[in-house]
Amino acid sequence: MSRVVKLAVIPGDGIGPEVISEAEKVLDAVTAGSGIHFEKTHFSLGAGRFLETGDTLTDADLESIKSHDAIMLGAVGGVPGDARLKDANIERGLLLKLRFELDHYVNLRPSKLYPGAPGPLAAPGDVDFVVVREGTEGPYVGNGGAIRRGTPQEVANETSVNTAFGVERVVRAAFALADRRRRKLTLVHKTNVLVHAGAIWKRLVDEVAAEYPAVAVDYLHVDAATIFLVTNPARFDVIVTDNLFGDILTDLAGAVTGGIGLAASGNINPDRVFPSMFEPVHGSAPDIAGQQKADPTAAILSTALLLDHLGLTAEAARVTRAAEEDIAHRDGAHRTTSQIGDAIAARVQA
Amino acid sequence: MSRVVKLAVIPGDGIGPEVISEAEKVLDAVTAGSGIHFEKTHFSLGAGRFLETGDTLTDADLESIKSHDAIMLGAVGGVPGDARLKDANIERGLLLKLRFELDHYVNLRPSKLYPGAPGPLAAPGDVDFVVVREGTEGPYVGNGGAIRRGTPQEVANETSVNTAFGVERVVRAAFALADRRRRKLTLVHKTNVLVHAGAIWKRLVDEVAAEYPAVAVDYLHVDAATIFLVTNPARFDVIVTDNLFGDILTDLAGAVTGGIGLAASGNINPDRVFPSMFEPVHGSAPDIAGQQKADPTAAILSTALLLDHLGLTAEAARVTRAAEEDIAHRDGAHRTTSQIGDAIAARVQA
Ligand SMILES: CC(C)[C@H](C(=O)O)[C@@H](O)C(=O)O
Ligand SMILES: CC(C)[C@H](C(=O)O)[C@@H](O)C(=O)O
Repeated sequence: MSRVVKLAVIPGDGIGPEVISEAEKVLDAVTAGSGIHFEKTHFSLGAGRFLETGDTLTDADLESIKSHDAIMLGAVGGVPGDARLKDANIERGLLLKLRFELDHYVNLRPSKLYPGAPGPLAAPGDVDFVVVREGTEGPYVGNGGAIRRGTPQEVANETSVNTAFGVERVVRAAFALADRRRRKLTLVHKTNVLVHAGAIWKRLVDEVAAEYPAVAVDYLHVDAATIFLVTNPARFDVIVTDNLFGDILTDLAGAVTGGIGLAASGNINPDRVFPSMFEPVHGSAPDIAGQQKADPTAAILSTALLLDHLGLTAEAARVTRAAEEDIAHRDGAHRTTSQIGDAIAARVQA
Repeated sequence: MSRVVKLAVIPGDGIGPEVISEAEKVLDAVTAGSGIHFEKTHFSLGAGRFLETGDTLTDADLESIKSHDAIMLGAVGGVPGDARLKDANIERGLLLKLRFELDHYVNLRPSKLYPGAPGPLAAPGDVDFVVVREGTEGPYVGNGGAIRRGTPQEVANETSVNTAFGVERVVRAAFALADRRRRKLTLVHKTNVLVHAGAIWKRLVDEVAAEYPAVAVDYLHVDAATIFLVTNPARFDVIVTDNLFGDILTDLAGAVTGGIGLAASGNINPDRVFPSMFEPVHGSAPDIAGQQKADPTAAILSTALLLDHLGLTAEAARVTRAAEEDIAHRDGAHRTTSQIGDAIAARVQA
């Protein structure tokens, strides 16, 4: 077979370019001689681009990105406290703008404790769950503002917006996923305090649950969910939650399962109207950038999610297996970013 | 000396009455023969009261509670899913109403890994920090609503309200506390996404920091903070954060430091216009209620915070030390709620 996939690559800032190089290396390895050709366009976006040109994401960038089949992103964000960036908001203007404009309403974040991965828990058990984080609503919509800014009378508000349309579609995606997995779905929210947002989530989970009688459903307040993530993470299969709670839970989940250096994610538009975007959960870590210290595994596992999304399931499985084998053989010896990428690429081809 | 303290006691629901009995036992033990007399009024409030009378918190209850010097609360909340409670919101109508009406703007939640306490972390290090959670603003204000409720066109919003007045006073309390401790303060927020709420918190921390040059200040996004809470909780001294992030972080902190059965809290009105309220962080746990299975240590340690707030520092220290000694001598043998209370009361008197 022969297939051309148009891939937009956004290496970004900090360790982004380093980890993306390794992800590309592994992508090349898994497609070598397969007839699948990834036609890549590299986009220079992030704090670096902003400092050079003043642009965060132009309309032309966005249109060009839209014309691709999928997106691979490293990490974006400059050095914290860099005064030249004080009026830039790379996160909102670039990363969140892409998620919103490309309608990435399913933010898929698997957490798995791979054999051999070091983690902070004494007895984690068999951890393998996926957080389905809503990606286009909630407290992330940017519907906030302030009056009397900078004065003792300032009032600053943020509004979380939750629509039945937006909640139902992500809840449906979560149930469909749970149905293909261990058939357990946990809604995480804070219904006792955020009563209106909580009620719409609860209602739509109950409604969709009726169509999936084989899926066991439970509910946890977000505070209680963090407790279970450290005392019994093995209890989870699929977690569905809003944009902000999902942000918090997935960093914690990453830490619990061997560190954010292994945590992959996909920003998915299930309707395939727009390209989906795959990125490690970690940030740009400017403090270690360019030093070959970053672990590219999260970027490589994100590539597996990308392959899977494109229907290249065999290739996705090979990448995942290669990364898992590499993790299982880690002995604490120091390896550079590209040595880890080389090792996983070699296993992919073995 | 002779002193009378008027104490309002709200045992509440589930395990609340059991743990409060033990806290009262310890309070009696520490004040025995001291000339300090706690004059207690018991209030029947919570899901139980609602089911009997339909009342959550009447104006008369509230006025009567206000006439006390301090409040001790067990836990409130009925059996999840109890249809008779579906129109009640005990959390908002009682617990949060007390916090808001009594202007408990400092929600003080210490986390300490006591020697001997079992925790989920393999190598926690020396953990001893306090979360200063804002208690009267943020996403907890109840400024939400929904339109087209129950339909496919529903939109449900929640607004987080943050005022300079409200943020500054809690930030001041946090700096004053850090100055009496290890002089490290960490602001936790999500400034890159919640830009308006984030900016007011950041501004006021920066402003008050100028008055405390000896206090080292840093900032973490809430997602990153959860990572450090499991990988390096020893890095924290004082954390200051908003109402919702504080709710999430303190449950996680409780889990990390030996479980929510040890986590104490104070809802404090530093201006002493209204009585402050002390309660364990845990909930009413109706599933184990009345079985003498609950650990009363969190309620007892909350009593130590109460004593401290009343200026009874020697008594507070005796209670804390007794609880710490009890924790250090735990050997996994089963003890009932009242056996633990007896043991701590005995140590207080030894
Ligand atoms: C950088 C930030 C805007 C982003 C988020 O909050 O979603 C990040 O934390 C993530 O989890 O992808
Ligand atoms: C019961 C609930 C309203 C409460 C809160 O969210 O503040 C509880 O979780 C807490 O932490 O005291």
